[in-house]
Amino acid sequence: MTEEIVKLAISEWEAVLGQKNVLYDDASINRYSRSTLPQGTTPAAILRPGSVEDIQSILKTATKYSINIYPISRGKNWGYGDACAVGDGQAIIDLGRMNRIVEIDPVLAYAVIEPGVTQLQLHKYLKENKIPLWFDCTGAGPEASVFGNTLERGFGHTPYGDHLLNTCGMEVVLSDGRVLKTGFGHYSNAKAANVFRWGIGPYLDGLFTQSNFGIVTKLGIWLMPEPRCFNAFFFSVPEEKDIFSVVEALRPLRLQGTVRSLVHIANDLRVISSFQHYPWELTNGATPLPEELRKKLRRRGNFGAWNVTGALYGSKGQVASARNEISNALRSLAKVKFINDTKLTIAKKIGDFCQFLGIAGEFVGMLRSLESVYNLLKGVPTEAFFHGTLWRTKEINTTVSSDPLDNNAGLMWLSPVLPMTGAAALELNDIVTPIFKEYDFEPLITITLITERAMACVMTISYNRQDPIETEKATLCYDKLFDAIMKAGYIPYRIGIQSMNKLAKGSSVFWDVVDEIKRTLDQHQIIAKGRYQPKSRRH
Amino acid sequence: MTEEIVKLAISEWEAVLGQKNVLYDDASINRYSRSTLPQGTTPAAILRPGSVEDIQSILKTATKYSINIYPISRGKNWGYGDACAVGDGQAIIDLGRMNRIVEIDPVLAYAVIEPGVTQLQLHKYLKENKIPLWFDCTGAGPEASVFGNTLERGFGHTPYGDHLLNTCGMEVVLSDGRVLKTGFGHYSNAKAANVFRWGIGPYLDGLFTQSNFGIVTKLGIWLMPEPRCFNAFFFSVPEEKDIFSVVEALRPLRLQGTVRSLVHIANDLRVISSFQHYPWELTNGATPLPEELRKKLRRRGNFGAWNVTGALYGSKGQVASARNEISNALRSLAKVKFINDTKLTIAKKIGDFCQFLGIAGEFVGMLRSLESVYNLLKGVPTEAFFHGTLWRTKEINTTVSSDPLDNNAGLMWLSPVLPMTGAAALELNDIVTPIFKEYDFEPLITITLITERAMACVMTISYNRQDPIETEKATLCYDKLFDAIMKAGYIPYRIGIQSMNKLAKGSSVFWDVVDEIKRTLDQHQIIAKGRYQPKSRRH
Repeated sequence: MTEEIVKLAISEWEAVLGQKNVLYDDASINRYSRSTLPQGTTPAAILRPGSVEDIQSILKTATKYSINIYPISRGKNWGYGDACAVGDGQAIIDLGRMNRIVEIDPVLAYAVIEPGVTQLQLHKYLKENKIPLWFDCTGAGPEASVFGNTLERGFGHTPYGDHLLNTCGMEVVLSDGRVLKTGFGHYSNAKAANVFRWGIGPYLDGLFTQSNFGIVTKLGIWLMPEPRCFNAFFFSVPEEKDIFSVVEALRPLRLQGTVRSLVHIANDLRVISSFQHYPWELTNGATPLPEELRKKLRRRGNFGAWNVTGALYGSKGQVASARNEISNALRSLAKVKFINDTKLTIAKKIGDFCQFLGIAGEFVGMLRSLESVYNLLKGVPTEAFFHGTLWRTKEINTTVSSDPLDNNAGLMWLSPVLPMTGAAALELNDIVTPIFKEYDFEPLITITLITERAMACVMTISYNRQDPIETEKATLCYDKLFDAIMKAGYIPYRIGIQSMNKLAKGSSVFWDVVDEIKRTLDQHQIIAKGRYQPKSRRH
Repeated sequence: MTEEIVKLAISEWEAVLGQKNVLYDDASINRYSRSTLPQGTTPAAILRPGSVEDIQSILKTATKYSINIYPISRGKNWGYGDACAVGDGQAIIDLGRMNRIVEIDPVLAYAVIEPGVTQLQLHKYLKENKIPLWFDCTGAGPEASVFGNTLERGFGHTPYGDHLLNTCGMEVVLSDGRVLKTGFGHYSNAKAANVFRWGIGPYLDGLFTQSNFGIVTKLGIWLMPEPRCFNAFFFSVPEEKDIFSVVEALRPLRLQGTVRSLVHIANDLRVISSFQHYPWELTNGATPLPEELRKKLRRRGNFGAWNVTGALYGSKGQVASARNEISNALRSLAKVKFINDTKLTIAKKIGDFCQFLGIAGEFVGMLRSLESVYNLLKGVPTEAFFHGTLWRTKEINTTVSSDPLDNNAGLMWLSPVLPMTGAAALELNDIVTPIFKEYDFEPLITITLITERAMACVMTISYNRQDPIETEKATLCYDKLFDAIMKAGYIPYRIGIQSMNKLAKGSSVFWDVVDEIKRTLDQHQIIAKGRYQPKSRRH
């Protein structure tokens, strides 16, 4: 692909989209090349379509000149590749302008949205129109795309936390410009298009998640009716090994439907990093965090080795009954605390008063952190968790922006899936902890009970991106962790752009079939080449 | 395809499978040609593989001689085509011999099964091994395949009633003999293969349901932990138009998670047909059932125009709380009755006593019907619902077999999906009722709340297969119903072998894409040609 050809394509794109929606100046290219990973990729241009027709035109030109295009929704895929394509020289299609909330059905509790709709936008829309529905949001902040997270099979916090499981009906632009509607949606008059996911015939929606088979332009998502009663719960356990008993105690509660929310279990480091930076001053700049200091910080914040949050939704009677069951199930392990709106308001007043008295200290920070978790459990987006991406970053100025990219945060996520047993949690923790230490990093770990039977462990490698040696160590650490989890059979639920080719190892047939479907639906391999396509046959 | 070629193929198949597993004698061909539909199809042969290797050999020969093969699990797809292929002259692969329960994990509550595993087999296995897990079964009887129903996206009764939603991990033999494992299963050491459905990369499982892309040979299915407390509930409403209020009252209960089971709503005729035949003697052989007589039968049995059943699962506290909510929500409509094991036992004792006194009458029949529903809600398979398939059949001898095919039952099912609103239920009922009457049939109807937002209406055309005129009318009635529901936007969730080509009408792009994927995964169109493939390009 020569520069000449790109120029020809760009002029065609400009003719269709207008100049302001085709970006290729240095500043824009740089902006879209940034990554929290050690290495981003550099796009050829950024295209900002406003409609399906625009996308069809983009694809036509891309096919004509054999230029790869790479769709993003909002580009907030921090820790996994941000707004970057898998390879250099692709034209990014930034779908941010396509941000209509196309439909909300308050009776059947669903929305149809476009890729650019942000978490904050959807939240505000529901609030402002007094629609008593909640959507499940992630900790990725107000500006992240609801859509993008779902296609990447992300998860949140509420009973609607498994995002793909709560979608129904897609509109997909295929590389040849055809518009495919899934479920019942391809029958133009279908009345159950956004309420019955399977449709008739093969269920195709799954094909367009974690893949590169088409550009999804509309998505039906299910919303949760605001419950009559809501309680968050939290508890901690003192020892690292207690993760075994925690998981064993929680599994029956999830399996029996007593707890229908996701349950997040964060280790002490992950909690601490959510409201403070690495204590460079206390370690004289040394890494990793000494065990003594870790324990001190843990004690000071009154955290456990593992800290658990979840929530109960339902009628007063249901929530009361579930509270009893949870307390009983955890009795020998921890005292479970429950919090509702009233209790939180009181706690905040006490916090304000302490601050007024100048005796607030940790309490206020913790309270703020707790409040953010509490809100996520109610589907309210928050910026609070950006803080965790800056643990090892040294020069920070979050007054201008809290976006990890604006702060040059060094962040890689790796997220293996485990069966929901204490033994698996313990084994994984034992496998990864020494690897973090070997490269002078702290194991920042959450383990989330994402379904009734499975857990996703999200491991954070937080590193100082200004330090080339630390950055190199971060890469080595990531690679070693990747190999270790694959070897142990804990396959990730999602990966970063740097790891796509690693997926082929140890697998048979599956990725060949994926590649064959790719060649069927995108003959010229125009869309998002290499994305979840480790065996691409055209390099 | 000449007879000569088939003979060559058969001799190859016999060499691999052994003679007793390749059937082509007249009796066998006839047996596999039977259908409850007006017209079955005639296979070229029946092949009974015992392993994946056998299937690979079968496919190799089929490809060599261009013979279409058609896999069935147990062939109990009554009302939709039974064991018949979509077209004549295909070789049926009867997977019944592959009936291993490969694995049961009592901790993570799942099973891995082969296609031949029957409902009774799985139920008995769990009982005999004292594994406190329930599986969701359908009314299709003890000998129906768990697997086949799931691939056809059938539904049952419990909170695990949406069958595909409760599967995880498939093994699929592709037409070229490759064995594809979905989810995480293609990594041979993956620990979460049967607990985390999505795996990594595109989710392919949906492709192998309601399709003809491969032969699924293993399936992970999730099982429900036996609840500590179980209550079935039921109630009736007097008028046909009450369906509106019933659906409006139940929707919030489903959406809020108060009721997690499926809820079945059967009209009077459907209930009556479940324990008695068409009263030929009272109508002097005339059809359809006069309105007077319908009302009389309804009154005699103490049924409503609509009769609702569902169940509550959980702790004692949860079930008690849900009971209150249901009673309150339905207060102005009906008195909801709850029943548990103790109450059922007492009722049965009273029934026995009445029978002893000779005053049992309707009560005992109803009780037996109630007990069967009660058991289905607990995942216990029953033959009781076969009776409903014989409503219009005149010469019946169920003492030998209760299989609808052995009794030459005339039965067609048509099952449109509706959004869960009272208005939709009412509209559909109003559309279809006159069509049934036009052709002298009774509208036997159930409406099931299959998800939190959608309902499936199963309409039964029960006809006397010995009567060619009535059979012809049944076909006309079915076709008219099919056109009417499609026109109104109520698309079926599943269809019979006679209707595959009807699916293309009113749809765009979707079925083209399906056909393209078919050609990719099964280049020579060997497997189940025409099944959910209305736009097959090679006839």
